[in-house]
Amino acid sequence: MKVEQVLHMNGGIGEASYANNSLVQQKVISLTRPVREEAITNLYYKKLPRTLSIADLGCSSGPNTFFVVSEIIKAIENLCRELKQDSPEYNVFMNDLPGNDFNNIFRSLDSFKNEFEKNSCGPCYLFGAPGSFYGRLFPNRSIHFVHASYSLQWLSKVPEGIENNKGNIYMSSTSPLNVLNAYYEQFQRDFSFFLKCRGEEVVEGGVMVLTFLGRRSDDPSSKECCYIWQLMAAALNDMVLEGIIKEEQMDAFNIPQYTPSPSEVKLQVQTEGSFTVNRLEVSEVNWNAYDKNWNAMDFEWEEFESLGDGGYNVAQCMRAVAEPLLVSHFGEDIIEAVFSRYQRLLAESMSKEKTMFFNVTVSLTRNA
Amino acid sequence: MKVEQVLHMNGGIGEASYANNSLVQQKVISLTRPVREEAITNLYYKKLPRTLSIADLGCSSGPNTFFVVSEIIKAIENLCRELKQDSPEYNVFMNDLPGNDFNNIFRSLDSFKNEFEKNSCGPCYLFGAPGSFYGRLFPNRSIHFVHASYSLQWLSKVPEGIENNKGNIYMSSTSPLNVLNAYYEQFQRDFSFFLKCRGEEVVEGGVMVLTFLGRRSDDPSSKECCYIWQLMAAALNDMVLEGIIKEEQMDAFNIPQYTPSPSEVKLQVQTEGSFTVNRLEVSEVNWNAYDKNWNAMDFEWEEFESLGDGGYNVAQCMRAVAEPLLVSHFGEDIIEAVFSRYQRLLAESMSKEKTMFFNVTVSLTRNA
Repeated sequence: MKVEQVLHMNGGIGEASYANNSLVQQKVISLTRPVREEAITNLYYKKLPRTLSIADLGCSSGPNTFFVVSEIIKAIENLCRELKQDSPEYNVFMNDLPGNDFNNIFRSLDSFKNEFEKNSCGPCYLFGAPGSFYGRLFPNRSIHFVHASYSLQWLSKVPEGIENNKGNIYMSSTSPLNVLNAYYEQFQRDFSFFLKCRGEEVVEGGVMVLTFLGRRSDDPSSKECCYIWQLMAAALNDMVLEGIIKEEQMDAFNIPQYTPSPSEVKLQVQTEGSFTVNRLEVSEVNWNAYDKNWNAMDFEWEEFESLGDGGYNVAQCMRAVAEPLLVSHFGEDIIEAVFSRYQRLLAESMSKEKTMFFNVTVSLTRNA
Repeated sequence: MKVEQVLHMNGGIGEASYANNSLVQQKVISLTRPVREEAITNLYYKKLPRTLSIADLGCSSGPNTFFVVSEIIKAIENLCRELKQDSPEYNVFMNDLPGNDFNNIFRSLDSFKNEFEKNSCGPCYLFGAPGSFYGRLFPNRSIHFVHASYSLQWLSKVPEGIENNKGNIYMSSTSPLNVLNAYYEQFQRDFSFFLKCRGEEVVEGGVMVLTFLGRRSDDPSSKECCYIWQLMAAALNDMVLEGIIKEEQMDAFNIPQYTPSPSEVKLQVQTEGSFTVNRLEVSEVNWNAYDKNWNAMDFEWEEFESLGDGGYNVAQCMRAVAEPLLVSHFGEDIIEAVFSRYQRLLAESMSKEKTMFFNVTVSLTRNA
């Protein structure tokens, strides 16, 4: 499987689309706002750029797509007013893999631009930047601010040599040690290369704010990060037992993801050397983004109250993210069955315990 | 009708898609190659840029999309070898209206990039730049080479005050004078604003090569440029007579296009003042791009011989271009009927006379 060609969030705006099932990701973006504001303020004070180039890596396609960029531009405009500076020109690069639904992004461009024109912000030029961020995307020293939220946990490929990860589709407490090592090494290689590429692209003093789906624990097979996939594995294993999926097929399927700990992220940044860590944080969100502690940002709570079925919500969220991977390996036919089982298992677990996603956020500055 | 939201070539890769019906456009690109090569050579000698930013305006989505950009990069690479210079970095901006099928472009990005990597060209970064070229698309002084082929004849909107263009959908010998004037004035305003915007975006000494679907004649209602739409009007008028289309609906439909003469293009460039004309040429191509005088470029003649039905080919070509406009005004239901009538009328005309499209190509340099 070539991850680059297979991995993408579900396109369009239908029931199983990422656009309609990305409330968790939106919450995470909201939680990490203070880190971005600090980073952008430092950057602006230091550089007062006339043109500011912002890249959102793994922007996907949905209501969150313009969220971060809008917020960054508003923050800069406030700084300009404070410092009595003219607004800069903004170059905004929306990056994702070529399979992402860019058409959907571009079709909501008008409302995005109108918002800024209404508020007489600096001119904003928006571009789609298709390609893997595990490779160069932009010219040398051309980007001021890089943002990535919930995209960098995706690896460039499934680690090699993990055929013995039987009954699992991700790291788990029953995974052999070589599997855990292979996953970690793939993360090290990928993240290191990511840092090298961005190091070439980001201007001196430029900043990156990256949020990984990760873990707090030092144990890579901790339930914190692995349980969500273990339940999907359980759904698939049931289908193996029933003869719907072949065992070899199940054994050959592994998710190209690594959910790092804060110290693993920090170590890699220090080892690679292009960037300095300014801030490193862990936050958490409930698997079911519709839980009662959630204060809506721009949307109406009422719209969602009827959608209070946690199992369904989380299954849909994971489906929007994982369906293309599953389809590419197992074919279309099993999808409904997998997700209905998965939904049941999710609901069961969530009724018994508090289930959370852990987010590792790091703010970095490009070294001189 | 807001042209920006309606106008786009037929997406996808199906029978009626632009991707499968853009041989005329490919021929035109091939015909105008010497003008681009001269322009890019002059630019490169003068500037020896380390980063070269190329914008293709109205790139659409199909086999032609990467054609011009590939050719430009190859030309530059040859110049680098001649002058023993390192290759520059290339920024390539593919522009079209937000309704264009950018997903389709991005999904063939890999093969485009592989070609360059194979030939160890300079690194190439490709971006989608959605938006109307009758407005700013890029930051100040950021683009070196602008290309547009068969896109600038599209106006930003249908001219106002042409309700009396009865029985016509474009300029025609039976159009009242106010209609002809309204079309010309809309062209003047649009092209002038285009030049102003590009004047701000293109670096000093940067170049533009623009090809319009146009005419040789000084008469704006000349058959040279109007006949192709007159036949479509005839098909629609038949359907009015048969009661399938309402007369008011027909009267309210006009194509947002202007097919200028070389002198009209030149006059506007001189009046606006940002650019100097280096070259101004007219060329022609047969309506039926499969005609025998055509020497294939990169494709096999054999593939196309079976597609020798001129009426069908031209109708499909025009359908790929005009279907979204027609659908937005008349609805989906009449489309098959319009194009089957149109095909018959086209075949009839083409059997009686040689029917040609005329292309006006201008090469411009940004003034100091």
